[in-house]
Amino acid sequence: MVRNGRVDAPAEERVDFRSDNVSGALPEVLEALVAEGRRRDAAYGEDASSRALTEELAALFEHEVAVLPVATGTAANALALALYTPPWGAVYSHAHAHIQVSECGAPEGYTGGAKLVPLEGGADGKLGPRAVSAAIHREGSVHAVQPAVVSVSQATETGCVYTPAELGALAEVARAHGMAVHVDGARFANALVASGHTPAELTWRAGVDVLAFGATKNGCVLAEALILFQPARARELAFRRKRAGQLLSKQRFSAVQLRAYLAEGRWLRAAQHANEVARRLAAGLEARGVELAAPVHTNQVFPRLNDAEASALRARGAAFYDWPTLGAGVRRLVTAFDTRTEDVDAFLHALPPRVSASV
Amino acid sequence: MVRNGRVDAPAEERVDFRSDNVSGALPEVLEALVAEGRRRDAAYGEDASSRALTEELAALFEHEVAVLPVATGTAANALALALYTPPWGAVYSHAHAHIQVSECGAPEGYTGGAKLVPLEGGADGKLGPRAVSAAIHREGSVHAVQPAVVSVSQATETGCVYTPAELGALAEVARAHGMAVHVDGARFANALVASGHTPAELTWRAGVDVLAFGATKNGCVLAEALILFQPARARELAFRRKRAGQLLSKQRFSAVQLRAYLAEGRWLRAAQHANEVARRLAAGLEARGVELAAPVHTNQVFPRLNDAEASALRARGAAFYDWPTLGAGVRRLVTAFDTRTEDVDAFLHALPPRVSASV
Amino acid sequence: MVRNGRVDAPAEERVDFRSDNVSGALPEVLEALVAEGRRRDAAYGEDASSRALTEELAALFEHEVAVLPVATGTAANALALALYTPPWGAVYSHAHAHIQVSECGAPEGYTGGAKLVPLEGGADGKLGPRAVSAAIHREGSVHAVQPAVVSVSQATETGCVYTPAELGALAEVARAHGMAVHVDGARFANALVASGHTPAELTWRAGVDVLAFGATKNGCVLAEALILFQPARARELAFRRKRAGQLLSKQRFSAVQLRAYLAEGRWLRAAQHANEVARRLAAGLEARGVELAAPVHTNQVFPRLNDAEASALRARGAAFYDWPTLGAGVRRLVTAFDTRTEDVDAFLHALPPRVSASV
Amino acid sequence: MVRNGRVDAPAEERVDFRSDNVSGALPEVLEALVAEGRRRDAAYGEDASSRALTEELAALFEHEVAVLPVATGTAANALALALYTPPWGAVYSHAHAHIQVSECGAPEGYTGGAKLVPLEGGADGKLGPRAVSAAIHREGSVHAVQPAVVSVSQATETGCVYTPAELGALAEVARAHGMAVHVDGARFANALVASGHTPAELTWRAGVDVLAFGATKNGCVLAEALILFQPARARELAFRRKRAGQLLSKQRFSAVQLRAYLAEGRWLRAAQHANEVARRLAAGLEARGVELAAPVHTNQVFPRLNDAEASALRARGAAFYDWPTLGAGVRRLVTAFDTRTEDVDAFLHALPPRVSASV
Repeated sequence: MVRNGRVDAPAEERVDFRSDNVSGALPEVLEALVAEGRRRDAAYGEDASSRALTEELAALFEHEVAVLPVATGTAANALALALYTPPWGAVYSHAHAHIQVSECGAPEGYTGGAKLVPLEGGADGKLGPRAVSAAIHREGSVHAVQPAVVSVSQATETGCVYTPAELGALAEVARAHGMAVHVDGARFANALVASGHTPAELTWRAGVDVLAFGATKNGCVLAEALILFQPARARELAFRRKRAGQLLSKQRFSAVQLRAYLAEGRWLRAAQHANEVARRLAAGLEARGVELAAPVHTNQVFPRLNDAEASALRARGAAFYDWPTLGAGVRRLVTAFDTRTEDVDAFLHALPPRVSASV
Repeated sequence: MVRNGRVDAPAEERVDFRSDNVSGALPEVLEALVAEGRRRDAAYGEDASSRALTEELAALFEHEVAVLPVATGTAANALALALYTPPWGAVYSHAHAHIQVSECGAPEGYTGGAKLVPLEGGADGKLGPRAVSAAIHREGSVHAVQPAVVSVSQATETGCVYTPAELGALAEVARAHGMAVHVDGARFANALVASGHTPAELTWRAGVDVLAFGATKNGCVLAEALILFQPARARELAFRRKRAGQLLSKQRFSAVQLRAYLAEGRWLRAAQHANEVARRLAAGLEARGVELAAPVHTNQVFPRLNDAEASALRARGAAFYDWPTLGAGVRRLVTAFDTRTEDVDAFLHALPPRVSASV
Repeated sequence: MVRNGRVDAPAEERVDFRSDNVSGALPEVLEALVAEGRRRDAAYGEDASSRALTEELAALFEHEVAVLPVATGTAANALALALYTPPWGAVYSHAHAHIQVSECGAPEGYTGGAKLVPLEGGADGKLGPRAVSAAIHREGSVHAVQPAVVSVSQATETGCVYTPAELGALAEVARAHGMAVHVDGARFANALVASGHTPAELTWRAGVDVLAFGATKNGCVLAEALILFQPARARELAFRRKRAGQLLSKQRFSAVQLRAYLAEGRWLRAAQHANEVARRLAAGLEARGVELAAPVHTNQVFPRLNDAEASALRARGAAFYDWPTLGAGVRRLVTAFDTRTEDVDAFLHALPPRVSASV
Repeated sequence: MVRNGRVDAPAEERVDFRSDNVSGALPEVLEALVAEGRRRDAAYGEDASSRALTEELAALFEHEVAVLPVATGTAANALALALYTPPWGAVYSHAHAHIQVSECGAPEGYTGGAKLVPLEGGADGKLGPRAVSAAIHREGSVHAVQPAVVSVSQATETGCVYTPAELGALAEVARAHGMAVHVDGARFANALVASGHTPAELTWRAGVDVLAFGATKNGCVLAEALILFQPARARELAFRRKRAGQLLSKQRFSAVQLRAYLAEGRWLRAAQHANEVARRLAAGLEARGVELAAPVHTNQVFPRLNDAEASALRARGAAFYDWPTLGAGVRRLVTAFDTRTEDVDAFLHALPPRVSASV
């Protein structure tokens, strides 16, 4: 945008903060695809790469796991919920959770019509154990849906990170009512590097049963996977996945992406970069007097910008979404592994100077 | 196998006729992925490549189309059927159709519980109009499922090809009962080049409403698409696709594969090759006195081999499936765009000589 | 209870305010069953009584209608919602609506996984048009469920009555977003007589598309019916009903109940009586210093009683439910057509006298 | 008909052999309804009659049972199948079974999209163990639906009766593949009295897990019940029933029907009568040279009548269905507990005399 002033800049010349799924892919992930494309191997996950991936994730998470690659994060979430939620079950999550507002009812569909109970939580997108406890009514009554799953997003839709203690408190409520704990990890890598914890500490050690492990936003082409910490449940999940049209014939092309993504800490560096440029963006905005509607833990920034500012930025080629969920005037800026420092600076430069600090 | 005699040959050294989805990918498809991986663009099909793909397919099929990429052929079929089949609808297909026997009930799930009526057809896997007519009972009665879709596989599960006239006859029955016509085109390219017809002649001109256009088996990494010849139905289909977890965030990585696949007739040459090596395989088998259980129109060969022969071939590293559906002793051999002539010859060479022609 | 002081009083000797579905049946309804039981007639609604019922309801509602008897109110609601809500649709209702909290997810099941959006409303259980408008997000976006139905209970779960103007305002919002309006009329008769309006004024004239017409609570044995004011939609609904196992083979036994119930204004007198004894109960409670948590429009009374009072009443044989939804200490008392004035007086007599008016 | 010669005879004056669900109700069943209608009792099966019914059925079947009344036979079948069949499961039954052809896909809907595999069986409507074994393919493969239930109708759709040995042979195949055995007992009473066996011998002792116990056709107003011989599964079934809108609020009105029906062997006498008049009808037809397409075990007779004969009978007021499933010219005549001997004789009298025995 600032580079050439055209409104209709080609995609690669725009400063695009709409989502981290506008990103490209990590070079090593692409190389892995090319290498695999020259090979032949068994279909439907019977290949060598799929097996190796499971072993590598087990080592990474320090726990026996079952790994089921799928095509999208929505599918990963919906399958995980369907595994643990009967049609008469209830899934408790933050009212703004992706599974609640951005999956067009996929979890309801995959579960055969379970109920997703939207709960009030913090502005940081986090759900607390008391909100869950308070929402559970008429346990055991045939007239009411029954507790099945507590679902959290890690990082949250507001870019914030649950601590292991917070997860543990939710898991305790879950256990008390016979529920499982699901993590929507579309941005798990961003949360992980921000948290300073290990994958194990942020998952099974804190009581998590199943993780929708996202990799597409952070450098893969198309690679999401369900990671089950109760591998005995994988058999049922395999049938559910197949019926959902989510068993990839050439699954090895997903597996090699994930292996390249995880190798040598690449996924962590990619997320670290996204988080860092988000912090740079946040700092720059605050320095210009812009208020942020949520703390910046990971790769999302939620500034309050008035309409004139938003229009000016867009006229100069910046792309981003309004985010009224967090209040009037709030916008969402998402960075990715391939967001350049110069993109951040161009955005800040394009922001009209404020005469006063108030929006 | 014959190359090194090891039973546990690495995948790339085996003569693997289990399926065409053990294949790698076309070099140009891989190059397109790499190029796209260096770019950023809009998510969820709002990108330039997705738009271009639709235009190119419209030109190719000589008809306005809506194009919805999805992750798997099962998803493509199940979504197509769900679009045209209410929960109280009936889908008529050959009893051996992939949607009947190899999708673990995905069509029943996607449709909300419609009925797939298995019909007797020829040994070539083809369904005839009389079988469909005869199966329609109690039209209009609330006690019975109602006619909704006639579904055919092109090429069939037995590797054979419907002529435009055969499709037209089915479409006529379909129209008479208010049904749509669905084509499972997992191997559409193989059928197309074998038929000598144009894409239009094998689809909408013959009465086809929706095509599950497979590309993964014939040279893509992971790329299937629904092609709708009634684009007005695309809006409903878009909601169904999203709910199914089949709206790819980085859909452009599917679109660029398909564009590279279609460009310069690559897909046709790939299929042509697969068909040719299948014919070579068939000819070689027949020359050795082996009977084939079905005519070889495309890239599948169904020889009758006794157990000793099958074991000997497997011991020498050949991989293939038994196919009792077509009779005792029948095996399935599938070739692909990257099956080498030498693989075929090695297989034939590995076949123990017959003292008599009887199996 | 006060009659014999036994805790384990036989059912018919208790003062049972748990629900109006603990009631018996109107004598004329029983006589109609006996008379029909001596006849033979066509099954599945092809009988004379079913036809006559439709004509009588059309006259009563002053509108062409389709009438589909079903077994339960839950089924009536869920079928009505399924008719107007695609799997990717949203149903807007009060958070305390029966469809939200007391049907174990039946609407989600019948719709194939649609989303029931719980909205805040008044303490009277009523939903306002602004709450509906505010809840509609991302109309047209494939990522979000789409507006499909506004659902209200008439009377509400708190026993209150929507005016035609209130219904009309909701219908206006509904129309603006292409939604239908559904009324859960489990206690429609009670609302009707309390409102002073005609059936037409409380339904289609106010914009209602479909009414779940309850009769079981108000004097029938087992008789609920869907009344469609768009009879053209009945054909689809007929298939949905059959698939739901709700097409009654001997439907005529439901039809004759409903005919006897409606004849000579019996249903109105029955509801009138239930409402009157509820008012007597409310007045008696208030005279004894008991606060009511909701206004008494129909046959439900929600007193605040402390635990000692509740226990004392139960010890003397009274039966009722705690109703914490309306606040701490709130209890629900439901009267019916066969609640006797002496039952009300016995209950009031059994209430321990208060030394002060505060609970 | 023969009574007054009018084509448009009132329902009660016609000789109606369309189905046993055109029948009225047993006097004692009606009396029980009237008595219960004067009482008040708990809703949703918490009443005294529902408890007593369970005890009486346990005594009758000589086994602990759970009893869940529902509204229709379709619901009873679909719920039973849903309890034992996951969405990726297969239900094996005769191709002409009611669940296959007359329930509009209800089982597919209730199960969340399982597959009902239609099998060839005898002209008597019976399924054999070899047909089941032969239909089971790819057990354990994620690509195929998995064995879940063997379902039989007792009596069959052709009116025939399985012996305990025949049921046991099917149960053995079922057990070998981890399947449950379901009996559609819409006409269980007719089968029972024809068999000469006890309820236990025709159910759990022969390996049956769940019985859809029909009573509506044989003398009740509206009363069907699921009888579970594994009562531990009742909790899950209770949630499924509620979600299906099949938990009757005034369930006691179903329970008292069933109690009166079972008391003093009334149900057996009713079925005995229906079977006897069917045999009289069959004998009369054969004496007139009419061939029967199936043996007459219970209350259904399937004569071959030419179109002139069928028209003549209908012109004289007889009502019955054509039944082409059993061959050209076959008609179905169903008797009931309230079919009079004189109705049978009138029908036979109305049949035009044959000059030769050929149809």
